[in-house]
Amino acid sequence: MEECYYMNQQRVFAMYHIETPYDLEYAAKVMAGEQSTGTFIAVPGETEELKDQFAAKVVSIEKLGEVPSPTLPGSKPPGGSNKSTSYNRGKVVLSFPLHNFGPSIPNLLATVAGNLYELREFSGLRLMDLELPNAFMEKYPGPKFGIEGTRKLANVYNRPLIGTIVKPSIGLTPDDLRIVVRDLAMAGIDFIKDDELNANPPYAPLKDRVKAAMEEIERVADKTGKKVMYAFNITDDIDQLERNHETVVKAGGNCVMVSINSIGLTGVAHLRKFSEVPIHGHRNQWGAMTRCPQLGMEFTAYQKLCRLAGVDHLHCNAIDSKFYESNESVIQSAKDCLTPMFGGYTVMPVLSSGQWAGTAQDSYASMETIDVMHLAGGGILGHPSGLEAGVKSMIQGWEAAVSGVSINEYAKTHTELKQAIEKFGK
Amino acid sequence: MEECYYMNQQRVFAMYHIETPYDLEYAAKVMAGEQSTGTFIAVPGETEELKDQFAAKVVSIEKLGEVPSPTLPGSKPPGGSNKSTSYNRGKVVLSFPLHNFGPSIPNLLATVAGNLYELREFSGLRLMDLELPNAFMEKYPGPKFGIEGTRKLANVYNRPLIGTIVKPSIGLTPDDLRIVVRDLAMAGIDFIKDDELNANPPYAPLKDRVKAAMEEIERVADKTGKKVMYAFNITDDIDQLERNHETVVKAGGNCVMVSINSIGLTGVAHLRKFSEVPIHGHRNQWGAMTRCPQLGMEFTAYQKLCRLAGVDHLHCNAIDSKFYESNESVIQSAKDCLTPMFGGYTVMPVLSSGQWAGTAQDSYASMETIDVMHLAGGGILGHPSGLEAGVKSMIQGWEAAVSGVSINEYAKTHTELKQAIEKFGK
Repeated sequence: MEECYYMNQQRVFAMYHIETPYDLEYAAKVMAGEQSTGTFIAVPGETEELKDQFAAKVVSIEKLGEVPSPTLPGSKPPGGSNKSTSYNRGKVVLSFPLHNFGPSIPNLLATVAGNLYELREFSGLRLMDLELPNAFMEKYPGPKFGIEGTRKLANVYNRPLIGTIVKPSIGLTPDDLRIVVRDLAMAGIDFIKDDELNANPPYAPLKDRVKAAMEEIERVADKTGKKVMYAFNITDDIDQLERNHETVVKAGGNCVMVSINSIGLTGVAHLRKFSEVPIHGHRNQWGAMTRCPQLGMEFTAYQKLCRLAGVDHLHCNAIDSKFYESNESVIQSAKDCLTPMFGGYTVMPVLSSGQWAGTAQDSYASMETIDVMHLAGGGILGHPSGLEAGVKSMIQGWEAAVSGVSINEYAKTHTELKQAIEKFGK
Repeated sequence: MEECYYMNQQRVFAMYHIETPYDLEYAAKVMAGEQSTGTFIAVPGETEELKDQFAAKVVSIEKLGEVPSPTLPGSKPPGGSNKSTSYNRGKVVLSFPLHNFGPSIPNLLATVAGNLYELREFSGLRLMDLELPNAFMEKYPGPKFGIEGTRKLANVYNRPLIGTIVKPSIGLTPDDLRIVVRDLAMAGIDFIKDDELNANPPYAPLKDRVKAAMEEIERVADKTGKKVMYAFNITDDIDQLERNHETVVKAGGNCVMVSINSIGLTGVAHLRKFSEVPIHGHRNQWGAMTRCPQLGMEFTAYQKLCRLAGVDHLHCNAIDSKFYESNESVIQSAKDCLTPMFGGYTVMPVLSSGQWAGTAQDSYASMETIDVMHLAGGGILGHPSGLEAGVKSMIQGWEAAVSGVSINEYAKTHTELKQAIEKFGK
């Protein structure tokens, strides 16, 4: 939200995009009623005084246009007709008294993103942004490491962390993994992560994967002085999450990864309480919550909740990825992550999917930051001169980007980048 | 799914509805590749042998039609053009080797409902159903109480449990609540639940609410012999969830409620491990996952995951509710809940929203069961002759329905039903 609401410590502000066959003022009142003191019929005890103290308020309404047909099914136009001739779109800001739920992520969700989505007064409803009072900051300390802590642990400064995902995603035994990790570590990579599909599978249990990977990482660190950061996917049931974290930390690991939407924001906040290493947040399933533009949640709101819960790194897709998301949306996501929250709560945006040395240029030009993790799968593993060249090509791509030189120009004096362009360039 | 896949103990079967500018066969292969062994470029180590062991397989494809324009944004038609002239819709069944992730709800989710939603080969993708091997049953024991256990605790047989939601949702002090609960209990209601908006708010902390409500419930039980089942909303952070549960149980409470999507399925499964009372599952936020028919998840799949995690009661909306959902969808949801899973895992469908005595008729006719919780807010609290009459009218509505008599006919000899029809009938 553009407005600064931090002045008011006692209310949560939520901004929505709505689409409705009703006029926007009426629709906004329905939202406010449903999520605070309303019911379908006046009931005893629902006094005006109670409403004053506990009602959600409509802060602002802005008309965004009209569409001739409803985006989502099931809306019921006024007057009982089956179809309206036009549906109003608008931006609505509501505020909720904090004392209705207190500084609790799960109970906040029931209020700002609960039954609202099912109301038949709407043919579209999307939570765009949230502004939370400081009480949330006091309850949830946010990212324990953030950008600074991650850089310190990885010992990488003045450029992005260059990383990769262990491939193939599925099927490597711990001994296979050992070789992959050794090669990547020797290639000088900063960061390795598990695929989100690979956590604690029977064919390669986490404890065996951790042992294999960490032995190789420590061995390489002894030789080269560089200890790779490895985000082990510890996604699991709540009890097991704690044991998995311990497995990683005891083996000298310095990062854990979780599928945020699989363990829930409460799972993340729980992990944050005892985690001794950065939490790498993967957002798989997020598409289900966001891909319909008139439903679910915008990343701007989502990333705030993730940071509040305590993730240190957060996936944002990437420029020219294999996914549906537009580059504009990806850029906005990275910028959202880099916007301070409660004056801090820094989180490192993770750019991943379809990446190679050449995508550094557009990433830097648009995001205007080097505070990202830049992950390439095939773009490193598939480099014609091998892994080390793959990593170097990525670093060279960023050097070119930051110094304002085109990659083709920079490639004239940098072989690895040149080879990457030949193989991966359009 | 119609087919019985239980014979094969080693694979998970997932059924999707997809919409794609590609031919369905190609699109199905993309799904299978993305969620198992694929990446955007062949990488070393991805051998044919490994693929055989770990690849997802396309089990069946059925064409469902074509649409002229894409439902969701961001799909990329073949050949690099910006727009296809038609989009194929189909039903696709994939199977995944269980050993890729093991019997773990959160890791299952990353596979069957993870990055898939973001693939640009699709303009629609919805998880419709799941068939899980018995290993999941061995790991997750499912509902601890189910229908039978709930009936036993509530001591209600041969008819639905009649219940209500404490209203106003927000703003009652513990002393206000005391009066509401006393009146409801004296009125002979079977079940009371908190609103999903009301869990552990600063103005009325859970422990004070539990104390007030349980004192009244016990006092009435001493008088009348009937102990109301009260589902206290214990939704909260993971640690607090355990403390909240203890608060309820120590006070003699016999049910807890959680917002499933706020604490996540892992949160529910965690609660299931120590819960001594039935878990009442509220599904707020579910609309965001399901309201776009070409995205997210169908309730058929969702309710299986909820049961696996251990909910004993599950909200399904209701006939003629205030929400967007069609009656057909509500009926299917109730039937899904009543379909055995692993030969058991019974869960009680909760019908709620816009309900009154008159909605029993259509509910029974369509769902063909009395194994439901039937909740009415205004339909009980707003009855012209008070709460007791409200509860009686609901029971009479079901008596009429089950005996095949119209409510108008039955109302001739049942005053409370008659008054309800006069007030709430269309």
